[in-house]
Amino acid sequence: MNLILLIDILGTVAFAISGVLTAINKRLDPFGILIIAFVAAIGGGTLRDILIDAPIAWMRDLTYVYVIFGTTILTVIFRKRLNYIRRSLFLFDTIGIALYTIVGVEKGIAAGFSPIICISLGTITACFGGVIRDILCNEIPIIFRKEIYATACILGASAYFLLLQTPLSTDIIVIISGSIVMTVRLLAVYFNLSLPTIYTKEELE
Amino acid sequence: MNLILLIDILGTVAFAISGVLTAINKRLDPFGILIIAFVAAIGGGTLRDILIDAPIAWMRDLTYVYVIFGTTILTVIFRKRLNYIRRSLFLFDTIGIALYTIVGVEKGIAAGFSPIICISLGTITACFGGVIRDILCNEIPIIFRKEIYATACILGASAYFLLLQTPLSTDIIVIISGSIVMTVRLLAVYFNLSLPTIYTKEELE
Amino acid sequence: MNLILLIDILGTVAFAISGVLTAINKRLDPFGILIIAFVAAIGGGTLRDILIDAPIAWMRDLTYVYVIFGTTILTVIFRKRLNYIRRSLFLFDTIGIALYTIVGVEKGIAAGFSPIICISLGTITACFGGVIRDILCNEIPIIFRKEIYATACILGASAYFLLLQTPLSTDIIVIISGSIVMTVRLLAVYFNLSLPTIYTKEELE
Repeated sequence: MNLILLIDILGTVAFAISGVLTAINKRLDPFGILIIAFVAAIGGGTLRDILIDAPIAWMRDLTYVYVIFGTTILTVIFRKRLNYIRRSLFLFDTIGIALYTIVGVEKGIAAGFSPIICISLGTITACFGGVIRDILCNEIPIIFRKEIYATACILGASAYFLLLQTPLSTDIIVIISGSIVMTVRLLAVYFNLSLPTIYTKEELE
Repeated sequence: MNLILLIDILGTVAFAISGVLTAINKRLDPFGILIIAFVAAIGGGTLRDILIDAPIAWMRDLTYVYVIFGTTILTVIFRKRLNYIRRSLFLFDTIGIALYTIVGVEKGIAAGFSPIICISLGTITACFGGVIRDILCNEIPIIFRKEIYATACILGASAYFLLLQTPLSTDIIVIISGSIVMTVRLLAVYFNLSLPTIYTKEELE
Repeated sequence: MNLILLIDILGTVAFAISGVLTAINKRLDPFGILIIAFVAAIGGGTLRDILIDAPIAWMRDLTYVYVIFGTTILTVIFRKRLNYIRRSLFLFDTIGIALYTIVGVEKGIAAGFSPIICISLGTITACFGGVIRDILCNEIPIIFRKEIYATACILGASAYFLLLQTPLSTDIIVIISGSIVMTVRLLAVYFNLSLPTIYTKEELE
């Protein structure tokens, strides 16, 4: 329980930092930076909760608000030293998407949706904070362009449903499918993999 | 019943193709293409259902998901031959907005909204998938700029309410108002009509 | 009661005009202008109502629709003379954000949310119409970049909760906290204040 809460908070921190860095890159003012940090951290879960008509998590539990607020201030202050913790950041983010994917899948199951929709909800939870972050900063969302990011979430979420057919306990299923998200993401970054391009040379000129 | 389902699916296909083509034009990766296809096809209905607080159609009926998925794959593969079916595509799209407009109007009526709001809901259902598609691709939505598209939906939806005052049966009203959407759209494209400009020559320089 | 309704309508007028002017600046067609005017005027309240899962105000009370429609037409016709009423416009807008902030805070309280969330809801009500307006026009939202606008709402909304600890009546609290929003905003524009920059000279080069 405490471990999951800790991971959830580390994921929120990682997503909020990604928002702060994107906003700083666009030279937004302090209010703009704060909003982008929030959106990056809670946008995916908010969209999920609107789609399944559930109460929105961060509006009922202020932990997220405090964590994002604190993260934003610290990130702005120490932004020049972030290079030193770039690897930790990437690790938090990777753990974060794994956890958010599982949370989204399980909320979908609890609301009675079919596996395909639950996989979508997991992917939305993990990825759409970043999509809204990029839209607000007037960029085409980065995950639509060049990274194996959503794909890792889709694979992990699909594994969750395959494993549900086995006699494994839910805890084990969560750990395995979360690990799949993380492994795919880590391998993709390590080996610099992208989704196969569909474009011919001509089209890319 | 079967005819309406068929038209609905053809409309979904047409909207999904529009999404794929927009995404390819922006050189998105396969995941990005799939998301834009989905958003183009179900974005308008989703926004409508959120506004009227109804369950979201595609999350309960997977037909749409399969159709969009299949359409995306086929469109990516055969994208260079799409010129040959450009006219069919345009026809599906035109039938699609007519149908989506009527669906939106009827959902609004069922939820007890006033005619003006129902006309808005019909127009949102038909047009906002394209709006969200363009936003995600970092473009000003095309229907805000130069086409008689939403106007056709507004006219057809308004006709629906005028005809409700007559003794005509609902089936007939649906057919007439849907035909109005299609006719206005076809005439607009055929004669290359736009909404009258409000800008003086000076302003456009 | 009538005074609040009048102020609410003047605020809606001011926000709708801001939408029309932004849309004209992007050379949108008449339908695009109308949509941007609507979004600027009712976008913040709509997002708030979706977040707290409340019925959406403008869908049940057509006053807003008529006001925005009329404002759009008049603004398009008389847009070249708007310079003469620029000050009145700014005043309406300032009164509008003060009122919208209070409405958002009170809706949050009525729905049982904590003070921080209510302050956020007030700020969202006042500011996010403008955010969605700018996104639809493919701009980074102006309030993220250079104005003390949201800050005024946050300060006024915070004052509301501080004053709730005093024996003052709700009417007085509304008036004081609304006045704080207006005063901060007026002073910021009069003295050309921005939020303090977080960027070093190097970063801004």
